[in-house]
Amino acid sequence: MAPIINGRLLFNQLPNGLPVPGKTTVYDASETIDLETAPLNGGILVKILVLSADIYIISRMRDSSVEGRSSPFLLNQPIDNYGVGLVLRSEHSSFKQGDHIYGMLPFQQYIVMPPATAERFTVLSNDAGIPWSAYVGVCGMPGQTAHHGWREFSKAKVGETVFVTSGAGPVGATVIQMAKAEGLKVIASAGSDEKVAFIKSLGADVAFNYKTEDTREILAREGPIDVYWDGVGGEALEAAIDAASVGARFIECGMISVFTGEPYHVKISFNIVTKELKISGFIVTSLHQAHLSHFYETFPKLVKEGKIKYKEDVTQGLERAGHAIVDVITGRNKGKSVILVGEE
Amino acid sequence: MAPIINGRLLFNQLPNGLPVPGKTTVYDASETIDLETAPLNGGILVKILVLSADIYIISRMRDSSVEGRSSPFLLNQPIDNYGVGLVLRSEHSSFKQGDHIYGMLPFQQYIVMPPATAERFTVLSNDAGIPWSAYVGVCGMPGQTAHHGWREFSKAKVGETVFVTSGAGPVGATVIQMAKAEGLKVIASAGSDEKVAFIKSLGADVAFNYKTEDTREILAREGPIDVYWDGVGGEALEAAIDAASVGARFIECGMISVFTGEPYHVKISFNIVTKELKISGFIVTSLHQAHLSHFYETFPKLVKEGKIKYKEDVTQGLERAGHAIVDVITGRNKGKSVILVGEE
Repeated sequence: MAPIINGRLLFNQLPNGLPVPGKTTVYDASETIDLETAPLNGGILVKILVLSADIYIISRMRDSSVEGRSSPFLLNQPIDNYGVGLVLRSEHSSFKQGDHIYGMLPFQQYIVMPPATAERFTVLSNDAGIPWSAYVGVCGMPGQTAHHGWREFSKAKVGETVFVTSGAGPVGATVIQMAKAEGLKVIASAGSDEKVAFIKSLGADVAFNYKTEDTREILAREGPIDVYWDGVGGEALEAAIDAASVGARFIECGMISVFTGEPYHVKISFNIVTKELKISGFIVTSLHQAHLSHFYETFPKLVKEGKIKYKEDVTQGLERAGHAIVDVITGRNKGKSVILVGEE
Repeated sequence: MAPIINGRLLFNQLPNGLPVPGKTTVYDASETIDLETAPLNGGILVKILVLSADIYIISRMRDSSVEGRSSPFLLNQPIDNYGVGLVLRSEHSSFKQGDHIYGMLPFQQYIVMPPATAERFTVLSNDAGIPWSAYVGVCGMPGQTAHHGWREFSKAKVGETVFVTSGAGPVGATVIQMAKAEGLKVIASAGSDEKVAFIKSLGADVAFNYKTEDTREILAREGPIDVYWDGVGGEALEAAIDAASVGARFIECGMISVFTGEPYHVKISFNIVTKELKISGFIVTSLHQAHLSHFYETFPKLVKEGKIKYKEDVTQGLERAGHAIVDVITGRNKGKSVILVGEE
């Protein structure tokens, strides 16, 4: 079989603010691969099926000298993120042809993974029989973030009230459904009326568009809040501090407002002391040990049964992946953003 | 026995910023009491021996319509705070003449406490034989604040680093000694060279005057920090967030900076998420159930043995109590501020 094109999305230059497809990232079709003869050296050959576009990607588009938890993307290399791949060939005993794997994959069509890297992948059994794309969303990192963070930090009790920001995103949408299932009153916000409608369809008691309604007014009327799920930081965080009940738990999952728009300096206040707030920042990977097996035991089945709903915004092909990323960062996506790279 | 003067420190008007003795609080000698005949109605007659001047008092000098955790002082009534009293007469079975009691006492020389109020007091056995004044400081609310907060939230491990603000205050000084005893490296700050010398005498590894040295520089050199004991909020809190290690614990005990000087808007940042910070505000009374018995079992003995040191700044008489309070709020006191109201 002759070599075929192995398309890639390369990190081309640092963004100045928002990434710009064609500048920050460029699609490159200059590389080829021979799927039958490419040497594996004990590793596996993977065909990338689905990749995820997530907000946190912006934090990796930084100068590699800047410290941070996530590794920075390297210039002139493909960016990478969570994805699902199909094993085409394997020289590794943990994988066989036809396996579906989940983990960090480059934004390219095919990759030979060396053994040490391959060993970080999860082989997806998919006993529940849900679409593979769900494994980068509600059954992947975003769903895990919601599941782990909620179980670890919410200490939720029936009848309590939670405020969820970024409620239409794959994390927030999952949190809303977990909270409703546990008998909480759910207040949730998003940035468009279409997203608000989606939030309502998930069962949120109060859903509002934070661009057209005042968060402080809503919380004053519908609060106080016992749990705050923070995906945005900034003014919403400040409003939540002021609307919190004594002993409220704040789960700090993301702060998209830090990356978009002017930095907002939260009027962090004596309320943190007097309301005895418990504020927990977390990274999903730190909670895998405690919660990941429970996640895979429960979530795919709940999704299959329709007990946890999700919505996807599908982008076809790596050529458009740069736009999908910008859409997620700016909130223009209409569901969990997934990039379909290849078919089985 | 004829009636004698029962001097009182009355809350006279709301402060506009700092309290002003003679205006905010006034000493009043117009009331008298007959110690032999004053009716007890089932309660106890208490002679106030020692009262505490604490920073948090400023938060109670507010309009009574403003909500808050601590009760606001009432105009034209004596202010109150933690103190030690001597029972002169009792009609309550839980107390007998000669008992020393600890609890919330008014700033006056004598008080008849009704039964329901009396029942909130702790009878101090003082088996350790330490000065009664210690029971409003290192063995009272400030010591309990340090003890409870540290045990509940620090999750300290040998070899970790803690940064303690207000290190010369009765809370901070106690935290420093607990941290050293548990094998941590201690960085501590205070607002005068004299206080810094006191902090060093307690065993702090690094002690600095935050008014003449740069907190960020010190933390960059001596950090990162695994635990932050916050008594001040504001810029120190912001510097601590930026100097924190992954998984650091922030114990939010006080935010004096909120009350003195211009409000400072903390640049609360994505670091809370990426560093997975755990920030816990607390009020000492909420932790009594879990930690108070351990406190009374251990602290007076440790103080008696010199294993926990303390320093007092003594004010004689209620007439000067208003000045003692301002000194504490502005940091001019030179040790735990205690007001000696009466002698046994």
